[in-house]
Amino acid sequence: MTPKALAAITDANVIVGYNTYIKLIEKILAEKKVIGTAMMQEIERCKLAVQAAVNGENVAVISSGDSGIYGMAGLILELVMQQEKSLRPEVKIIPGISAVNASAAILGAPLMHDFAVLSLSDLLTPWELIKKRAELIAQGDFVVALYNPKSIKRVNQIQEIREIMLKYKAPTTPVGIVHSATREEEAAILSDLEHFTQEHIDMFSLVIIGNSKTYIEDQYMITPRGYQL
Amino acid sequence: MTPKALAAITDANVIVGYNTYIKLIEKILAEKKVIGTAMMQEIERCKLAVQAAVNGENVAVISSGDSGIYGMAGLILELVMQQEKSLRPEVKIIPGISAVNASAAILGAPLMHDFAVLSLSDLLTPWELIKKRAELIAQGDFVVALYNPKSIKRVNQIQEIREIMLKYKAPTTPVGIVHSATREEEAAILSDLEHFTQEHIDMFSLVIIGNSKTYIEDQYMITPRGYQL
Repeated sequence: MTPKALAAITDANVIVGYNTYIKLIEKILAEKKVIGTAMMQEIERCKLAVQAAVNGENVAVISSGDSGIYGMAGLILELVMQQEKSLRPEVKIIPGISAVNASAAILGAPLMHDFAVLSLSDLLTPWELIKKRAELIAQGDFVVALYNPKSIKRVNQIQEIREIMLKYKAPTTPVGIVHSATREEEAAILSDLEHFTQEHIDMFSLVIIGNSKTYIEDQYMITPRGYQL
Repeated sequence: MTPKALAAITDANVIVGYNTYIKLIEKILAEKKVIGTAMMQEIERCKLAVQAAVNGENVAVISSGDSGIYGMAGLILELVMQQEKSLRPEVKIIPGISAVNASAAILGAPLMHDFAVLSLSDLLTPWELIKKRAELIAQGDFVVALYNPKSIKRVNQIQEIREIMLKYKAPTTPVGIVHSATREEEAAILSDLEHFTQEHIDMFSLVIIGNSKTYIEDQYMITPRGYQL
């Protein structure tokens, strides 16, 4: 957590967030009012946050990683814009270390060239669009970070994405899988495009697939920037 | 700067970095040995860092933003791997807030859906590959963050990228330009794909071009995640 994020939480008198994230920071919450709800209720949670701010409270909405990357920043702003213009509270977005930043650092330096970030969750995005994007990413030889690669109900998408990638990327292309980046249970696995779906992947995993120059050495996944060394 | 980055600098006895970045943190450097060099000498600087680590020093290499995104992490690892296996020092990469994270937060929530990160610098990458990637990004309706959009010597590339994007994206697509994100001289401009190249853009700028759903309201650039609100 950055000092700016800590300061925003300290300054707020109402804290809103998914229960799991609230627990991670409960030591610094002291006497603040906490609005925590279970997962999949993010719209309700953010509506409560906006309403509290409209009522004059100083509200901090907690988002893990970077709130601007598949986090709560956009939903909060969308809900604020639904308010009458005169009622809209001021919103400050505080950037953070997203799973893509944290996982890359754990794996070595896999993102050192142009890359794409793609979520495989089809709850809010048509699966056909996700597949099309995967195809274009592979054609462009981008490094790619896959968010939400798999869940209990959604197990086949990662296989389909692997097949799309294999149309353009070599089977030996390095793949890194990071579980629960920056949490106590953090773990990383190195594999390749041919085999990586045999590894454990779940909703707490981020998958990074390299470009045609990416290599693995001494357990580091490295994408060269292009320097002549 | 995160507490982890601060701790790494505090623990190190040798600090290596571009002079401008060294100046930003000189207050915490105390009595440490500092190896600072001018810009464009990053290979020499990183070689000195690796040599100091091989000699047994605890070295911190300073990279602005996130060292894993167009930063020094990859170059350091590449140089370490050139050492004989028995001599290679341990390397820890500490993730940071990259210009893409910081600039998105300043603009609002422009990255809330799938996005790509593309550098327009053709010093280390063929211009033809950069153009191809821009074309694929536009076809996939990705939000895109453009690093190194322009420099004193390189002024036409951003115009070419604009023309490629206009083949697939509407002229009214929102574009945000952030200068010197997180520095004192930080500034943001909102424009659109038709007009943004008329704004001031230089080597300290990051340009974010939205997708087909991105909109601007109350000076916030917002890409909807897809929620039904």
